[in-house]
Amino acid sequence: MAFRKIINDPVYGFITIDDELINAVISHPYFQRLRRISQMAMANLVYPGAVHSRLHHALGAYHLMSNALSELKNKGTEITAAEEQAARIAILLHDTGHGPFSHALEHVLVESRHHEELSIMIIEELNRQFDGKLSLAIEIFTGRYHKKFLFQLISGQLDVDRLDYLTRDSFFSGVNEGVIGYDRIIKMLTVHNGELMVEEKSIYSIEKFLVARRLMYWQVYLHKTVLCAEQMLKQIIKRAKYIKAATQQPLHNFITQPIQTVTLEEFCNLDDYDVLAAIKGWCDHEDKILSFLCKGIINRQLLKVQYFGTPVDEAVVQQKIAEACNQLNISPAQAAWLVFADEVESSTYNPDNEHIHILFKDGTVKDISEVDNALINQNLMGKVKKYYICYLRT
Amino acid sequence: MAFRKIINDPVYGFITIDDELINAVISHPYFQRLRRISQMAMANLVYPGAVHSRLHHALGAYHLMSNALSELKNKGTEITAAEEQAARIAILLHDTGHGPFSHALEHVLVESRHHEELSIMIIEELNRQFDGKLSLAIEIFTGRYHKKFLFQLISGQLDVDRLDYLTRDSFFSGVNEGVIGYDRIIKMLTVHNGELMVEEKSIYSIEKFLVARRLMYWQVYLHKTVLCAEQMLKQIIKRAKYIKAATQQPLHNFITQPIQTVTLEEFCNLDDYDVLAAIKGWCDHEDKILSFLCKGIINRQLLKVQYFGTPVDEAVVQQKIAEACNQLNISPAQAAWLVFADEVESSTYNPDNEHIHILFKDGTVKDISEVDNALINQNLMGKVKKYYICYLRT
Amino acid sequence: MAFRKIINDPVYGFITIDDELINAVISHPYFQRLRRISQMAMANLVYPGAVHSRLHHALGAYHLMSNALSELKNKGTEITAAEEQAARIAILLHDTGHGPFSHALEHVLVESRHHEELSIMIIEELNRQFDGKLSLAIEIFTGRYHKKFLFQLISGQLDVDRLDYLTRDSFFSGVNEGVIGYDRIIKMLTVHNGELMVEEKSIYSIEKFLVARRLMYWQVYLHKTVLCAEQMLKQIIKRAKYIKAATQQPLHNFITQPIQTVTLEEFCNLDDYDVLAAIKGWCDHEDKILSFLCKGIINRQLLKVQYFGTPVDEAVVQQKIAEACNQLNISPAQAAWLVFADEVESSTYNPDNEHIHILFKDGTVKDISEVDNALINQNLMGKVKKYYICYLRT
Amino acid sequence: MAFRKIINDPVYGFITIDDELINAVISHPYFQRLRRISQMAMANLVYPGAVHSRLHHALGAYHLMSNALSELKNKGTEITAAEEQAARIAILLHDTGHGPFSHALEHVLVESRHHEELSIMIIEELNRQFDGKLSLAIEIFTGRYHKKFLFQLISGQLDVDRLDYLTRDSFFSGVNEGVIGYDRIIKMLTVHNGELMVEEKSIYSIEKFLVARRLMYWQVYLHKTVLCAEQMLKQIIKRAKYIKAATQQPLHNFITQPIQTVTLEEFCNLDDYDVLAAIKGWCDHEDKILSFLCKGIINRQLLKVQYFGTPVDEAVVQQKIAEACNQLNISPAQAAWLVFADEVESSTYNPDNEHIHILFKDGTVKDISEVDNALINQNLMGKVKKYYICYLRT
Repeated sequence: MAFRKIINDPVYGFITIDDELINAVISHPYFQRLRRISQMAMANLVYPGAVHSRLHHALGAYHLMSNALSELKNKGTEITAAEEQAARIAILLHDTGHGPFSHALEHVLVESRHHEELSIMIIEELNRQFDGKLSLAIEIFTGRYHKKFLFQLISGQLDVDRLDYLTRDSFFSGVNEGVIGYDRIIKMLTVHNGELMVEEKSIYSIEKFLVARRLMYWQVYLHKTVLCAEQMLKQIIKRAKYIKAATQQPLHNFITQPIQTVTLEEFCNLDDYDVLAAIKGWCDHEDKILSFLCKGIINRQLLKVQYFGTPVDEAVVQQKIAEACNQLNISPAQAAWLVFADEVESSTYNPDNEHIHILFKDGTVKDISEVDNALINQNLMGKVKKYYICYLRT
Repeated sequence: MAFRKIINDPVYGFITIDDELINAVISHPYFQRLRRISQMAMANLVYPGAVHSRLHHALGAYHLMSNALSELKNKGTEITAAEEQAARIAILLHDTGHGPFSHALEHVLVESRHHEELSIMIIEELNRQFDGKLSLAIEIFTGRYHKKFLFQLISGQLDVDRLDYLTRDSFFSGVNEGVIGYDRIIKMLTVHNGELMVEEKSIYSIEKFLVARRLMYWQVYLHKTVLCAEQMLKQIIKRAKYIKAATQQPLHNFITQPIQTVTLEEFCNLDDYDVLAAIKGWCDHEDKILSFLCKGIINRQLLKVQYFGTPVDEAVVQQKIAEACNQLNISPAQAAWLVFADEVESSTYNPDNEHIHILFKDGTVKDISEVDNALINQNLMGKVKKYYICYLRT
Repeated sequence: MAFRKIINDPVYGFITIDDELINAVISHPYFQRLRRISQMAMANLVYPGAVHSRLHHALGAYHLMSNALSELKNKGTEITAAEEQAARIAILLHDTGHGPFSHALEHVLVESRHHEELSIMIIEELNRQFDGKLSLAIEIFTGRYHKKFLFQLISGQLDVDRLDYLTRDSFFSGVNEGVIGYDRIIKMLTVHNGELMVEEKSIYSIEKFLVARRLMYWQVYLHKTVLCAEQMLKQIIKRAKYIKAATQQPLHNFITQPIQTVTLEEFCNLDDYDVLAAIKGWCDHEDKILSFLCKGIINRQLLKVQYFGTPVDEAVVQQKIAEACNQLNISPAQAAWLVFADEVESSTYNPDNEHIHILFKDGTVKDISEVDNALINQNLMGKVKKYYICYLRT
Repeated sequence: MAFRKIINDPVYGFITIDDELINAVISHPYFQRLRRISQMAMANLVYPGAVHSRLHHALGAYHLMSNALSELKNKGTEITAAEEQAARIAILLHDTGHGPFSHALEHVLVESRHHEELSIMIIEELNRQFDGKLSLAIEIFTGRYHKKFLFQLISGQLDVDRLDYLTRDSFFSGVNEGVIGYDRIIKMLTVHNGELMVEEKSIYSIEKFLVARRLMYWQVYLHKTVLCAEQMLKQIIKRAKYIKAATQQPLHNFITQPIQTVTLEEFCNLDDYDVLAAIKGWCDHEDKILSFLCKGIINRQLLKVQYFGTPVDEAVVQQKIAEACNQLNISPAQAAWLVFADEVESSTYNPDNEHIHILFKDGTVKDISEVDNALINQNLMGKVKKYYICYLRT
């Protein structure tokens, strides 16, 4: 009997693994490490159910990839068994380059590299270990393969990555309004002139998808308390690096050494547990700033945070800094670690660099922003910026 | 022990009836009749699960009314026990004026009256039977009561009628994308200056609600096949009246007599079963047009239907009529019963006559269309019109 | 592109029709008629959501059949394309022999025939219309085909009929406790020595399935109010036949003529709408018994019903009959139509004539009632009988 | 306006906190620490979604407690505001005594104490910090309060602890078959003679609950792979203690010192992150046994495990030990850390020390095992034992 494993998933029911190479990839420590990387960083401080792992997301995206490829084949798109296997492996591994707390600490722990670059490095290392069997997966993942739609399924406006993370994140956080019709969108996928598109009758589903994404950004990912906690997490790592705070390996090297001297092996050994154990250890650190921030995260005693439609006045920041100096008996330079203002932005749809193509029954192709009575128009097409300040509670 | 009944509902879990007067209203034949009025008319020809009754919707809206009133009271809005009972009765009875197949045959069977007028007549009759105990419910239902928010909960942009029917219709049709966060919206309701509003942090939920409604209109209620079947249903009743086709009572009088001679009692005796049994009977009617349309509905052999962004050219209609004449060997006048073009429209939000007011933390009130980065802007604010033609399959 | 239609189903998401013959079968009036046969007869008087049609159940069972065949093929069971098509058609049509209100009126309207016999007659008629293309489906449906597991998927202890109706009925009635793990059971199906079995690790799922079935029987299908309403329905038809009450065709012939004179064509024209329209018409019938029962069903003013563990004492019945005589001023013979006692029974599992075979990893096969620590033991293996009496409310 | 916070929960929708003392308890670091204790220990190695925290479970049980108290009050049971607050606090804190990985490491890290004893010590410490405001909660929690049903809601056969963990664990693991009808059971709760009971019509729901629990035990909590991983986790801690392996504080003291010298403060500082960070550190430990087990857990390379209906033959164990000696070049004494056999047991219902009382309409009370046609009979009433062996893969 052929190889076959099923995994229970509260989101999709069952995920089937029916390929030995794919099973070997899943069993590799580099993939298993994703169990220890939380998908939504600090969001669980607001949404206690949002504790699912990046491994779970990777399996979910893999499941949707399997479904999408099956749909496309049913519709007549030619996809070979090798391409199918490679596309499924590519999506499984697309997030292996994420470090602890995913986006929240990206560019803070490993300053110079985007997580996708690291993913490529890791997949290449795996390719060596698997005797070149992942070469086609790498070609697809890096967009070099001639069948462009395979790449677009991994990284595009309607890729299975997004379809899974929106579905999964809304499921686990309990924000039902973020639910998208992933199954309908997948049934509507089609390939036209080598490009991934959606059929005409999916227009409302796509609109709904974009609006759900907008909602998830502002209500969950950039929820002010989540934002604040993730900024505090960043400040902790920055402060620890600044004062070269000691901790256990493998985190120690990331904190105390120039990033170039850290190896891929060390990176692949690093996860949320190292960072959180370090934060627990630093709660009693002699550096007041570091211990203040660490206790804040551990005991969920967060800074106060406010959002505004316009940039925060520098005078307000200075006043809050002055108050912090008084309150904690620290210098303005120290207080500036605890009082800070910045901006965040999110775009619902940007037709300049993003594209969702609708294939009409008559063969014409239009961008979703150009269909009749489009919901997606000027207002939704620019980026929305919001400004915030974090400061001490009094 | 106090009166208490629970009803299983797949949508909300359990619906509780804890008041004897309310139980008596529910037990009355005028309410029980709603079991035999389908909520979504012909939608089940496309969405086979969409067979729930108007009684089920009324119970659901009653449940949400109970929840909404409970939330408002928790937030400090004064609502007396009598007002609570009356508001719950008013929403229970808000749709009793619907005739067979609800909206699909409104103004066709009973030409001159809107279903809400009929609901009022029925509630007044019930009030007589219940010795005046429904007087306050009538005041609220007709908008005459001084606490305006109670009326707005029954009939307004965010009334519990809409919250239930969108939730329930998407549930039963299986169109998950129509799901709205009814529970979150209810938790965000508030009363300010006597008017129903929603709290600031519900903005994204409200946007999602409006987009889901837009989707439900075009994907379900006005789905081209559903539209076509409902137009055929209308044509059947119109044709039957035109030729005074005989059928059983109580429908017979509605078909053959001037509407003024039909009594409220007769109306309250009429439901989907009369209409569908008549249609079954007319399948063999000697009138070719009537029997053609009736067989079409019974056997789900529908006319062909197409949607357009602009009005259908009269020449196209004439050509399709000519084809129908040939095909069925009928006159152009007869064919015009089977080939017809018209328009439908739906608005997502119209700030001229609709209002969703957002109450900000600082006490200011804004229309949802005027908040920063509003999704609901010009494009969504007008009505969207679509044009269609129905004609014979060849 | 190959033929392909998708249908939204609130239970399974999407049901795919990808075969033109299957689509033609679904489009046939004999199948479309199932839209007008409610799956759960009078259960909606207690569970208002339980209004789904037998057509919806047939589509659901078809979907599970498709999944089950796909699983078995993945596990190496040889199933040809023709067999697959035939098995899917057989399950689609397995319930076409059901008349109005399904089981509730079985043997009352058409006295001498079981619905499965009628199904076979209908499929044979369809086979003539479809030029013999359903011959293999008939062989499978009647158990004559040599691959016995195909028959067992249609009619057996773990057939897709049961898996769908338990899942669907609990879904629509809102009785979550009736939910079974249909997807897990299907993933555990296997064929061994030509027979359908389940893998060892499904034991707990199977136990759960049997207990859920037991719960659905007593809590829903045989809920005392449902039972009472269905008995009233039966009494109505019996009484109407007894007094040869007039009504519209096609029901008229079933009521007034010996059953042998009624044709298959007439049967296929009969549905819930005929029966309920007749009942509405009989509400004013001069026969007191008939009108009393009909008004009871239409206005949901049901007889009182009680369940007992032992047979109801005849003296109690006689007393209730005497009371009814007084109350309605009728004769004892008439009253006996409104006061009656009987028994119902249901078995959870009966290893004498039912079998669920567990295939162990070592190749041994055991009946579910014989595994270690079995839940399914003596107590569950006999039939459970309950006794009831229906009588007039005072 | 009164204090009011709502928390999104994927299981129940929203959880409402409407009491300042309760909010203060939730905000306390001793409660927040439960965020870092996973509810299901190693179950996520099989069920990747099962990563929810004990804090989430505590909030869920609190929600069900609120619902249960509200139902009982509606049915006329007298419950004062102070009792309600105390019962809700008691259930919130009932699991604060759990250490890292909950049950999996109970009695291994803190050898002499059951987690409920530790919970009491912690609540007493909190009571000191909250100036005695938790005294009534302590009385209820310890069963000393005269209204016994309040204690039974926290710790009994149908307590809200169980109702939540079965519901939540099946939800997050995706084992839908473990779903129980918690809402129906809560609606059926009643108090009779001061004791918690359930109404007669819940019998089938209770049976379903017990069968679902049985299924969850054997399919999830005692799934052979989960069992194996949790045994490996225990071996790790035991081995670390045996060789006094160094690690960071606060775990270091638990590993290296006699348990009496460890303080409550230290215990409250300990969580999953300390243990898993230690395990990561020990992957390169010079002790072969410790590093082997640690790498197994981190990379999910687990021992092989088998279940049997009878005790494992000592000769088999010895043979597996011999093989391990060869394979890893270790002594038999060392190998015995990696090869071990033991038993586990679980009871579905034990009427000797557990009771679910059914209150019949006529006022009689019966144990669930004594009702007519009971599912819960001899076979389910004893404990089920299974025997297992863990050993090295070859």
